[in-house]
Amino acid sequence: MAAGSSSSVPSDPLLRDELDIVIPTARNLDFLEAWRPFFQPYHLIIVQDGNSKNTISVPGGFDYELYDRNDIDRILGPRAARISFKDSACRCFGYLVSKKKYIFTVDDDCFVAKDPSGKQINALEQHIRNLLTPSTPFFFNTLYDPYRLGADFVRGYPFSLREGSPTAVSHGLWLNVPDYDAPTQLVKPNERNTRYVDAVLTVPKGAFFPMSGMNLAFNRELIGQAMYFGLTDDSQPNVRYDDMWAAWCVKVICDHMGFGVKTGLPYIWNSKARTPLVNLRKEHEGIYWQEDIVHFFQSVTLSKTSVTVQECYIELSQQVREKLGKVDAYFIKLADAMMTWIEAWNELNPSEN
Amino acid sequence: MAAGSSSSVPSDPLLRDELDIVIPTARNLDFLEAWRPFFQPYHLIIVQDGNSKNTISVPGGFDYELYDRNDIDRILGPRAARISFKDSACRCFGYLVSKKKYIFTVDDDCFVAKDPSGKQINALEQHIRNLLTPSTPFFFNTLYDPYRLGADFVRGYPFSLREGSPTAVSHGLWLNVPDYDAPTQLVKPNERNTRYVDAVLTVPKGAFFPMSGMNLAFNRELIGQAMYFGLTDDSQPNVRYDDMWAAWCVKVICDHMGFGVKTGLPYIWNSKARTPLVNLRKEHEGIYWQEDIVHFFQSVTLSKTSVTVQECYIELSQQVREKLGKVDAYFIKLADAMMTWIEAWNELNPSEN
Repeated sequence: MAAGSSSSVPSDPLLRDELDIVIPTARNLDFLEAWRPFFQPYHLIIVQDGNSKNTISVPGGFDYELYDRNDIDRILGPRAARISFKDSACRCFGYLVSKKKYIFTVDDDCFVAKDPSGKQINALEQHIRNLLTPSTPFFFNTLYDPYRLGADFVRGYPFSLREGSPTAVSHGLWLNVPDYDAPTQLVKPNERNTRYVDAVLTVPKGAFFPMSGMNLAFNRELIGQAMYFGLTDDSQPNVRYDDMWAAWCVKVICDHMGFGVKTGLPYIWNSKARTPLVNLRKEHEGIYWQEDIVHFFQSVTLSKTSVTVQECYIELSQQVREKLGKVDAYFIKLADAMMTWIEAWNELNPSEN
Repeated sequence: MAAGSSSSVPSDPLLRDELDIVIPTARNLDFLEAWRPFFQPYHLIIVQDGNSKNTISVPGGFDYELYDRNDIDRILGPRAARISFKDSACRCFGYLVSKKKYIFTVDDDCFVAKDPSGKQINALEQHIRNLLTPSTPFFFNTLYDPYRLGADFVRGYPFSLREGSPTAVSHGLWLNVPDYDAPTQLVKPNERNTRYVDAVLTVPKGAFFPMSGMNLAFNRELIGQAMYFGLTDDSQPNVRYDDMWAAWCVKVICDHMGFGVKTGLPYIWNSKARTPLVNLRKEHEGIYWQEDIVHFFQSVTLSKTSVTVQECYIELSQQVREKLGKVDAYFIKLADAMMTWIEAWNELNPSEN
C-alpha cells in the first residue's frame, strides 16, 4: 500500500473527516488535477484494478492510500477472489477498508462539469448536500427535492411524510458522454448529453433505476454492506453489471429499511470514449440475463425478521441462490460471493457488530 | 350555452381536431389574450363556476362553447348536483361533454411562462408531445424522458421495457406562485418558484403524486372516465381536494391498466395570489382526512376482472364506500357521486360502450 500526504487544505470543507473518496483506476491519476480544489481536503482510497506491476502516479498534495492486487490478496486472503480484478468493480474493496461514514466514488475519466452559468460544479459538495438532507421515497413531490432552498412540498403532499426518510444513496449524472449500453452506443455513437436538468429527486419506493458507479455517493454506515459490486472480472461471464447488481440489491434493501435513494444533481463531465464493440462483448450475457434479474428483484420480498442491512443482504443472497441460480450457475457463485463480502465486511469492521 | 367562432388559425397545429381546451372560470377571460398564438386554433370548452347571471366575456377570435350552471342542470338533470358549483372542480363537466380524444385544462390565472432563454413556452405543444410519446412506469430512467431528442435509455435499463407504455396523463408545473397548501403559504408567503427544471419524467408504478388541475392534459379516451374532480362545492365539507381526488383515482387505475403518468414540463406562469387564510378554511377537513385517504389509495388493489377504466372506477367507488365511508359519511356521498359520474359519462358518450 502506497500513501501520500495532504497540503494546502481549504478551511472546513463539509464532512472532511467523515468521507472517503474511492477511485478505481488502472492508470495515472492526472484527472485529479481538475478536481484538486474540491478533492484535496479529503482522503482518497485508490484501488488499482489492473496489473500490480504498473505504477499509478498520484499528483502531489493529495492525501491517499493506494491498494493494488497484492494488497487486496494480503488483506482478504482467500476471500480476495470475490473482489473483481481488471474491472472498476474492484472499487468496492475501498468501501470495505474505509472507516468513514460516507463514500464518494468517481471514475478516473470523469472531470469537473460546468453548470449553465459556466461555473464549475463541486460534485462532492452536492452529493454531501443530497446525503445530509432527507429523501421522500413514499410519495412523489412534483417540485422535486422539497428540502432544497426555494422549494417545498406541494399541495396534496401528506403532512405525515414531510419529515422524510434517511438518505442512503446519492446518484449523480453525466454531461457529455451519457452512460449508455453498447447497443445504444452503436446506434448513436455521437449522442452527447448536453441537457443540464437542475433537479434532485428521490426514486420512489418500489421503483428500480439503473445506478451507475461512475459518480456515486452513499452513507456507508447505512447501506455500505449492500454496496458489493459483484463478480465481473475476466474469469466470469461477460456481464458488465457490477454497479447494476449493486443498484438492484441496494434498492430492494433501502425500500425494505425505509431509506431513500436520490438521483439527479450533481453532474460530472464524462470523457469516456470506449468502443461500443468492446462493451458489447463485455455486456452480452448481462443483457441476456438482465430481464430475469429485473423480474427477480421486482418480485423479491424480504421478511420482517430481517431488520438490519446485513440480515437483508444475507436473505437476499439466499434468494439469489434459489431463484437466479436456476437461470445460470453463475448466480450461485455470485450468491456465495455476497456471503463472502459480508464475512469480509465483518472481519474488517468488527466494531459495527 | 354561448358560442364563438374561430379566425386567423395557424396552419396545422398539432391535434387541432382531436383536442379540447377546458377552462373553468368565474370571470372575464382576458387571460386568453396571452395564450392567443397557442390556443386560438383549438376549440375551448369554458365552464362557468359561479353565478350564471354573471357574464363571462371571451376575447374575439376564439372558437368556444360556454356552459353555465343552467346548462349543466339542463344537460345532466338531477345528476347535475354531482358537478361541483362555485369551484374549479366544475371543469370536469367539460370532460363529459367533450367529444375529443385529448383534453388540456388550464386555470384562468395561468399565463405563458418563459424558458431560461426568454422564449415563450407553448405549454400545449409540450403537453401534446408528452401525451403522444410513451411513458416508462415500470423502471426509472435516470436521464429522464428517454423519448426526448438527445436522450435515451441508460445502461442497465431493461430492453423488454423500452417500447414504453401508453401515456394517459401529462402534468405540467408552475413558475412564479407554486401550488402550495395553505399552511405552507402561511409559512412562506413570498416563496416563488424560479427554478426551471428541463425535464419530463414518468411517475413510477406504485408511486402517488399530487396532481394539480391547474396545468394538466390527458388522453380522454384512455383515462377520461376516471377524471372526476369530486364534490368540493359550498354544500360539502371543506376539502379543496378536487384535483387530488382525481390524482389518486387516476394513478391507481393507470397502474392497474399499465398506463403512464408524466410530470415536469411544460411550465405555465401562475399569477394566483389567493389568501392562505381563505385556503386554510377551504382545506382544513381535506388536510385532516388526507392521511386516511392516502393510506387507502396506497393499499387499494383492483381485481383482475376489472379490465376497463370504467370497471376499475366502479370497483374503486365501491371500495371508497366500504373503507373511506368509515372515516366520514362524506365519502359515501362521494362514492355515490363517482357512480353518477359514470352514468352521466355513459349517457353523454353512448358510442364508447
